[in-house]
Amino acid sequence: MTTKTTLTPAELLTKVEAIFRQSGLSPTQAGAVARVIVAGERDACKSHGIYRIEGCLRTLKQGKVDPNAEPTLTQDDSAIVRVDAKGGFSNPAFELGAPVLAARAKALGIAALVINDCTHFSALWPEVEALTAHGLAAIAMCPSYATVAPTGGTTALMGTNPLAFGWPRAGNPYVFDFATSVAARGEVELHRIAGTPLPEGWAIDADGKPTTDPTAALAGALLPFGGHKGSAISMMIELLAGVMIGDMTSPEALAFLGTMTVAPRHGELIIAFCPERFAAAKGGVNLASAEALFDAVLGQGARLPSGRRFAARQLADAEGIHLTADEMAILERLYKGGLDAVS
Amino acid sequence: MTTKTTLTPAELLTKVEAIFRQSGLSPTQAGAVARVIVAGERDACKSHGIYRIEGCLRTLKQGKVDPNAEPTLTQDDSAIVRVDAKGGFSNPAFELGAPVLAARAKALGIAALVINDCTHFSALWPEVEALTAHGLAAIAMCPSYATVAPTGGTTALMGTNPLAFGWPRAGNPYVFDFATSVAARGEVELHRIAGTPLPEGWAIDADGKPTTDPTAALAGALLPFGGHKGSAISMMIELLAGVMIGDMTSPEALAFLGTMTVAPRHGELIIAFCPERFAAAKGGVNLASAEALFDAVLGQGARLPSGRRFAARQLADAEGIHLTADEMAILERLYKGGLDAVS
Repeated sequence: MTTKTTLTPAELLTKVEAIFRQSGLSPTQAGAVARVIVAGERDACKSHGIYRIEGCLRTLKQGKVDPNAEPTLTQDDSAIVRVDAKGGFSNPAFELGAPVLAARAKALGIAALVINDCTHFSALWPEVEALTAHGLAAIAMCPSYATVAPTGGTTALMGTNPLAFGWPRAGNPYVFDFATSVAARGEVELHRIAGTPLPEGWAIDADGKPTTDPTAALAGALLPFGGHKGSAISMMIELLAGVMIGDMTSPEALAFLGTMTVAPRHGELIIAFCPERFAAAKGGVNLASAEALFDAVLGQGARLPSGRRFAARQLADAEGIHLTADEMAILERLYKGGLDAVS
Repeated sequence: MTTKTTLTPAELLTKVEAIFRQSGLSPTQAGAVARVIVAGERDACKSHGIYRIEGCLRTLKQGKVDPNAEPTLTQDDSAIVRVDAKGGFSNPAFELGAPVLAARAKALGIAALVINDCTHFSALWPEVEALTAHGLAAIAMCPSYATVAPTGGTTALMGTNPLAFGWPRAGNPYVFDFATSVAARGEVELHRIAGTPLPEGWAIDADGKPTTDPTAALAGALLPFGGHKGSAISMMIELLAGVMIGDMTSPEALAFLGTMTVAPRHGELIIAFCPERFAAAKGGVNLASAEALFDAVLGQGARLPSGRRFAARQLADAEGIHLTADEMAILERLYKGGLDAVS
């Protein structure tokens, strides 16, 4: 028999926010972090749901994130909006910057949001989705810590460097968000725990040789998706969202932290595009032309990215979020124990 | 015995430009197109070298490109620079827009160049390289015509949609430029001519089934690189560099032309970033941090993209470009025969 507890997204948000407040996070930090975690849980994106609470608390316990950071925004006459996260989580920094970025993109056609000095653990889809709600297209990217070898190489150098994109639609937007490694480190960890071999092409061992042994892979490096093409895209992310914004690259982030058990510290780059401004010279944006592409994909029996997430969201909004007794116990333990409950 | 003729890049440029002038291209069109073709030949990038002349002439012969188009540039107070190619080749449009894009990116930190209504056949690396020479980073992308099925699909929808990126360095820039399909259509064609099977994963047949038969693949569709991730990136290119800029998507371009034997008609999007502006708030851009990444890649025995091209360029600049007797005969035939020499 399995007992499930059903909570509305708002009820879960209250619980998660209370855990973070209890452990010392300021209202600014606790609210923004809780919102992305509940969004993940609501969308059945379990890897970025309540599972992440403990990692956030561990990062706090180890003194690697400022629980009281108040991000600050600076703006000049350029198309760059800058938010200094002040060593706090990326999420309140994004919430502060997003409306200003949106206004700037609508004024100039294209604009960029730079987040510096943040602790980053969350998926990027909540951010590109937030911008599509303003009628904008958006690209988001950030480094991580060095766990991925360049194609043809032997040692971890790049991060799993996620790339996300959003395009506004009348209903749910077109959104993708993926690691530029073949698989996430967490997926390799799951294979290790289950005692199952990795699929070919996921990883190399400490000698740089291909391996399907999860333990050898964790001591070695992950591989980029799509061979040299994915490897090049991952490097582009290091350059644009690391070097260019004056923040840490993935090897620098790993050297700075000295561990991968806490959320990485670096920056993030988000580019917003205003389709109406771009297509203005051609009589306005022909959104039907985009819809024809989506219809053609679905008509072939292929999927649009994020389709599973949006279906889960619809269900959660209608029926609530179902948590197992184990999951409820974790929430209870973290609420009562605070930082003491975290290894 | 093989006889090779050696020409300096300048001598080859004069020859190629003369072929285009002879066939009716205006000085504006002939000069810009000849420059990218000679750059390809110089870099031993044969697929975008003198081999392309005949395709350009065929496009002209079929009335699909305006030989006398004079691109026009418009600019407002936004970060978008627009060039209307007026139905000519993309290359003179880029040459007109590039310096204005560079100035705009330096003024605003980020800016975009939109090229509309162009005929497009060339690689994108000459364009991102031209922007790195201004000290900028750049991303370029464009649709093509529908030849690539979405991952999980059965029919050609997207184009081979190239994606290029450049990052400025003291010597040769960091540059990549690749199709978002596993392989180019031309590579499948080469397998068909050689009678060799395709590698697994390149293509599907007309029924949407995986195939290694080049003829079946040409009647079917190519596949995106990197599975659903590459497929999503290809779709992003359709949306940003097709729909958003008010120009044709790949299925629209194919429907418009009704053939794949001429260069496709569509638009192009180029985004330029000024690293100095981006990193200004952090005390300037730390280019050494980028160089440390490149050194680490090379130190592992992996390669940087475009390395082979830059080596070929160095050789061509020192020793000239070597053409075979067959290649010289083609140049001669196209110069003398003009459009009559083209099937």
